[in-house]
Amino acid sequence: MNPEEIRIAICGASGYTGGELLRILGKHPHARITAVTSERSAGKPVTDLFPHLHGRGALVFEPLDKQVLLDKADLFFMALPHGASQEAVNFLHSNGKKVIDLSADYRLKNPDAYRRWYKHAHAFPETIKRAVYGLVEINRDKIPGATLIANPGCYPTSILLALYPAVKRGLIDTTHIVINSASGVSGAGRKAETYYSFCEIHDSFRAYAVTSHRHTPEIEQELSIMAGCDTAVNFTPHLLPVNRGMLSTVCAPLLKNISQQEMLDVYREFYDKEPFINVLRDGVFPDIRNVRGTNRCDLGLAVNERTKSLILVSAVDNLVKGASGQAVQNMNLMCGFEETEALTDIAIVP
Amino acid sequence: MNPEEIRIAICGASGYTGGELLRILGKHPHARITAVTSERSAGKPVTDLFPHLHGRGALVFEPLDKQVLLDKADLFFMALPHGASQEAVNFLHSNGKKVIDLSADYRLKNPDAYRRWYKHAHAFPETIKRAVYGLVEINRDKIPGATLIANPGCYPTSILLALYPAVKRGLIDTTHIVINSASGVSGAGRKAETYYSFCEIHDSFRAYAVTSHRHTPEIEQELSIMAGCDTAVNFTPHLLPVNRGMLSTVCAPLLKNISQQEMLDVYREFYDKEPFINVLRDGVFPDIRNVRGTNRCDLGLAVNERTKSLILVSAVDNLVKGASGQAVQNMNLMCGFEETEALTDIAIVP
Amino acid sequence: MNPEEIRIAICGASGYTGGELLRILGKHPHARITAVTSERSAGKPVTDLFPHLHGRGALVFEPLDKQVLLDKADLFFMALPHGASQEAVNFLHSNGKKVIDLSADYRLKNPDAYRRWYKHAHAFPETIKRAVYGLVEINRDKIPGATLIANPGCYPTSILLALYPAVKRGLIDTTHIVINSASGVSGAGRKAETYYSFCEIHDSFRAYAVTSHRHTPEIEQELSIMAGCDTAVNFTPHLLPVNRGMLSTVCAPLLKNISQQEMLDVYREFYDKEPFINVLRDGVFPDIRNVRGTNRCDLGLAVNERTKSLILVSAVDNLVKGASGQAVQNMNLMCGFEETEALTDIAIVP
Amino acid sequence: MNPEEIRIAICGASGYTGGELLRILGKHPHARITAVTSERSAGKPVTDLFPHLHGRGALVFEPLDKQVLLDKADLFFMALPHGASQEAVNFLHSNGKKVIDLSADYRLKNPDAYRRWYKHAHAFPETIKRAVYGLVEINRDKIPGATLIANPGCYPTSILLALYPAVKRGLIDTTHIVINSASGVSGAGRKAETYYSFCEIHDSFRAYAVTSHRHTPEIEQELSIMAGCDTAVNFTPHLLPVNRGMLSTVCAPLLKNISQQEMLDVYREFYDKEPFINVLRDGVFPDIRNVRGTNRCDLGLAVNERTKSLILVSAVDNLVKGASGQAVQNMNLMCGFEETEALTDIAIVP
Repeated sequence: MNPEEIRIAICGASGYTGGELLRILGKHPHARITAVTSERSAGKPVTDLFPHLHGRGALVFEPLDKQVLLDKADLFFMALPHGASQEAVNFLHSNGKKVIDLSADYRLKNPDAYRRWYKHAHAFPETIKRAVYGLVEINRDKIPGATLIANPGCYPTSILLALYPAVKRGLIDTTHIVINSASGVSGAGRKAETYYSFCEIHDSFRAYAVTSHRHTPEIEQELSIMAGCDTAVNFTPHLLPVNRGMLSTVCAPLLKNISQQEMLDVYREFYDKEPFINVLRDGVFPDIRNVRGTNRCDLGLAVNERTKSLILVSAVDNLVKGASGQAVQNMNLMCGFEETEALTDIAIVP
Repeated sequence: MNPEEIRIAICGASGYTGGELLRILGKHPHARITAVTSERSAGKPVTDLFPHLHGRGALVFEPLDKQVLLDKADLFFMALPHGASQEAVNFLHSNGKKVIDLSADYRLKNPDAYRRWYKHAHAFPETIKRAVYGLVEINRDKIPGATLIANPGCYPTSILLALYPAVKRGLIDTTHIVINSASGVSGAGRKAETYYSFCEIHDSFRAYAVTSHRHTPEIEQELSIMAGCDTAVNFTPHLLPVNRGMLSTVCAPLLKNISQQEMLDVYREFYDKEPFINVLRDGVFPDIRNVRGTNRCDLGLAVNERTKSLILVSAVDNLVKGASGQAVQNMNLMCGFEETEALTDIAIVP
Repeated sequence: MNPEEIRIAICGASGYTGGELLRILGKHPHARITAVTSERSAGKPVTDLFPHLHGRGALVFEPLDKQVLLDKADLFFMALPHGASQEAVNFLHSNGKKVIDLSADYRLKNPDAYRRWYKHAHAFPETIKRAVYGLVEINRDKIPGATLIANPGCYPTSILLALYPAVKRGLIDTTHIVINSASGVSGAGRKAETYYSFCEIHDSFRAYAVTSHRHTPEIEQELSIMAGCDTAVNFTPHLLPVNRGMLSTVCAPLLKNISQQEMLDVYREFYDKEPFINVLRDGVFPDIRNVRGTNRCDLGLAVNERTKSLILVSAVDNLVKGASGQAVQNMNLMCGFEETEALTDIAIVP
Repeated sequence: MNPEEIRIAICGASGYTGGELLRILGKHPHARITAVTSERSAGKPVTDLFPHLHGRGALVFEPLDKQVLLDKADLFFMALPHGASQEAVNFLHSNGKKVIDLSADYRLKNPDAYRRWYKHAHAFPETIKRAVYGLVEINRDKIPGATLIANPGCYPTSILLALYPAVKRGLIDTTHIVINSASGVSGAGRKAETYYSFCEIHDSFRAYAVTSHRHTPEIEQELSIMAGCDTAVNFTPHLLPVNRGMLSTVCAPLLKNISQQEMLDVYREFYDKEPFINVLRDGVFPDIRNVRGTNRCDLGLAVNERTKSLILVSAVDNLVKGASGQAVQNMNLMCGFEETEALTDIAIVP
């Protein structure tokens, strides 16, 4: 089934992931955006908030009125804050709409874990069960038939894609994984906070949410599924003085004697058919600039023979493969479009 | 005449304008790149120097052998350094090839001016006469029939597009124009020089080539044609700590009593049909980030009633509308393609 | 009179100029900070807001209670927002305190101009008459005896220091001055606004407040005094993606035939004894990075013989010579300390 | 013994560490710089290469003539490239001079390790034995009597200071330490290489020298001494798009049940008297901007109870505590000056 055109609404469209959805879907031959919501900017043309979208149509923000939206669209991208997304997603989904939720609200399968990490209860545990974790490269089979996608977090995307082949093949010890990631500031959203003001970030670099980042249980949940046993990871995120881009450096003890070349072969074989995964050649490591604005994940690795460890480095654009691009990738599969439709752009370098 | 496909060679393809030509032409349905030259990188795959181009084909740099190239391509983009371009352009053009020269070698109509500003003689003054100055919005009529295009410099592009309507309508005094521009560092090319190393540029801002920048005679030549009389301008370029983007702020005395609204109307009328010129609404001024990676020129203006002056502000991407994008725009017109083919991308923001 | 120690209060100390006053005065052998005020951060240690000040004492913010403050300090630095400063300055000054006001409230001599540009009336026009405009290099004689200093704005500082010698000597036409300035973001203060958030500024460059910036009447007032006649200028400020630093590029028609070398001699002679003015050698122009964190103003110039114009370029740190450093320079003169006390640091480069 | 003044030569003074030595020593009351060497810039005034040093004297670079230098100075800072330093250090030291070597040439005690990691032999293994590893906080007792200091590398400084208390107290498993560091670009020196040009670094972030960085054996050597047994670490450095600053994030399994609060107490006790180590309060982590331009090391830590691991984060300025500042700290102890002399500046923030 490949419909000529699908009607799309974006709820919470005035932030950075909303802007990216507008940019990407604007190039999609089968997508027609019929509604964009923003409480604060209701009534304003989209180009007031996103001048770079000039020439891409005359959309105007409207408030999120669920009943009104039901008539307007077939598929909904939800870019609302965590917590705020729960109820709207449940409503739209239970009314038969396809929903891709970019918030964290439907990612954790265990409502207790949700409550523990997000500090409030989940009101729709039954709906959680319907949600498919939309990391395409891992859950590809489940997505075409899904009606509710929990679009992965940016950190988990970059980390799980790096670890997947080695974990699936049983090559590393999943009980001693150490992950350090660094993200561009857009990952924090479009916010009026002194903490994220230019002068507080420029020329700075810092770790944050040490031992407490909410993407930790998401990483551990998916890693445990891959590994077939419970895992806990040391995950330390950092804030980079750039707009976009995320680099994750993962270290894990090797379980087997394997050379760097053999490990690269494992990765190449695993990701051979993946249109968005780029395993770099021996000795080359990713740079966030090469994936900026793209849905690509670049991967590099090294086997440290002195310490019997594997070092993995992955780069994604936190707003594209880490959010809106991956959401469109999920839409493409859900709707029977080409997986790469609207997602073939390469980075603007330098 | 709209050929199915045209064979294209890029001479001097290992620099930033070369990379941009590869990125843009990679999306062009009628362009097939058949040769890319680089003396220093001959034999290397293009993706060694441009990892972001991964997946866009398997081109390998070759040395610039003119005889060999003659058989390989129908249209040549010349991205060689000033001076080095002269002879190759002349050879290819005199052998019946279409040539778009991104260097400055064929921009100045007066060989004496060339010698004065570039410090060496021009060996092919007759060929200069065949060259069309490829600022499409001003010379649109001459480009379809042209066989040699002198692709405009980045500063002149941003400045001439800002001044064109006011000068053509006789609204400003062209003898007292003051121009301040600021450019991203990629305008200097891909260079191994301490002066352009990260630590020497980051967190810096400086004027350079004060009263002596080589784009000055190019600006004055075209401005004099527009105005119908000789003009000299005060042009001061500055170096911005960003990769891309160019902002020009132009100030000129008004010759007539005209309101800001009327002036905006003049500009809107002039550029109404231009696909790449975006006259911003009243009170809004351009930001380089909104045009980065695009062929767009954003324009804002103010009438200063206290000083009876016009302030114009324009933004372009120095590598796209200021170089490679404009070159492809010229190619599109020369070859009968849609003018906007491969040039419709919008900026990646933030 | 050189007291051993002077007691100092900083009102509005939680912003960037407040932080700079704390940093600079922390090195001053004759200054003892006895009170720092902030409504929003009252009760918090200074190092909570300024972790870089760790080890520089245990100051705690207090609310601005004027009666309480009267007993605590002899000299007050006022770093309150424009408008908010008026009344507090008047109270402290009329109670016999020395006051250095970093706001704009006492800079404009004409209350009508204040009302026109700042959109509210000035309640203390008599106190304005007591204020000395604290641009030391121009008003040096008036400062030792002053009790109220209107500390100059950052843009006027960088611009007036550039123009002073040429205007005083009658070398340029003051009716056609065009000024383009670019400032680091800290000039906007420490603000929770989306407009100033990292992702909205990084990789951007834009003009703002075109024809309407409030420093314009301040520049024109002082320029008119220098020139001995009314002047109006075209002043266009721009926002640079750096934390600190301000570069002003000024263009004016020459009134006399004068060579670049002669003009440099005029400037060197004028500023020969000035400890903070650095006239660069022939052909060298300032870079903001060389003055960052310092009270220095670097100046370069060129005579454009083709256009019979003078191009001046000046660089200051908007928070130091453009605000807090200049305020301490004024304090040093008011209190009989060495003019350069606590102000001799050079820039951290790179 | 506190001499009035010591005569100092800086060999290899035209790079960034040389510039920092000039900046710092320029404030030192007991230091007189009598010679600065640079082969490439011999004959040029220091301010040609370092305009920010204007006003700090009239030094001129000279070539490195060892015999000439012997008469000129009592103490030598050697900021030559690795390899180039060996012979000059040996000559000056064997002629009775005090030498502080900022290169890596005398850091590794084992000449075989030097050969393995630096790819050439060490010609003066006997002199290595005389060198003291100048990490003051760890080797304080040995420095006053030393005549040859091997000034630590920037990465080892930031990492060893973070690990020292936990390792000394036997609180962590030293066989599974994972270290991720990120450095500003100045760590690579002042180089004319395309790789370090602005456009190749800005907006980028990448790992480099994965498993092969030359600071690895230095870290392991000192860690093994601390721990009393051989250790090997996983160390992955990254390149940050900032000029200065280094953040190291270290993860190690805990050997004992210890709370975060108890761990902080251990660190506070260890570093209580250290003038340059700043253990941050519970829940606060360092940011490179707070130590920029200073000799300070900021430390934060977290105990991860879910993974039974310790996370340490340290920040230093790679050019100051990671190079030139630490070198002056060593000089102060060697010469009987106050340890903090010339090193009390705080950071310029923002």
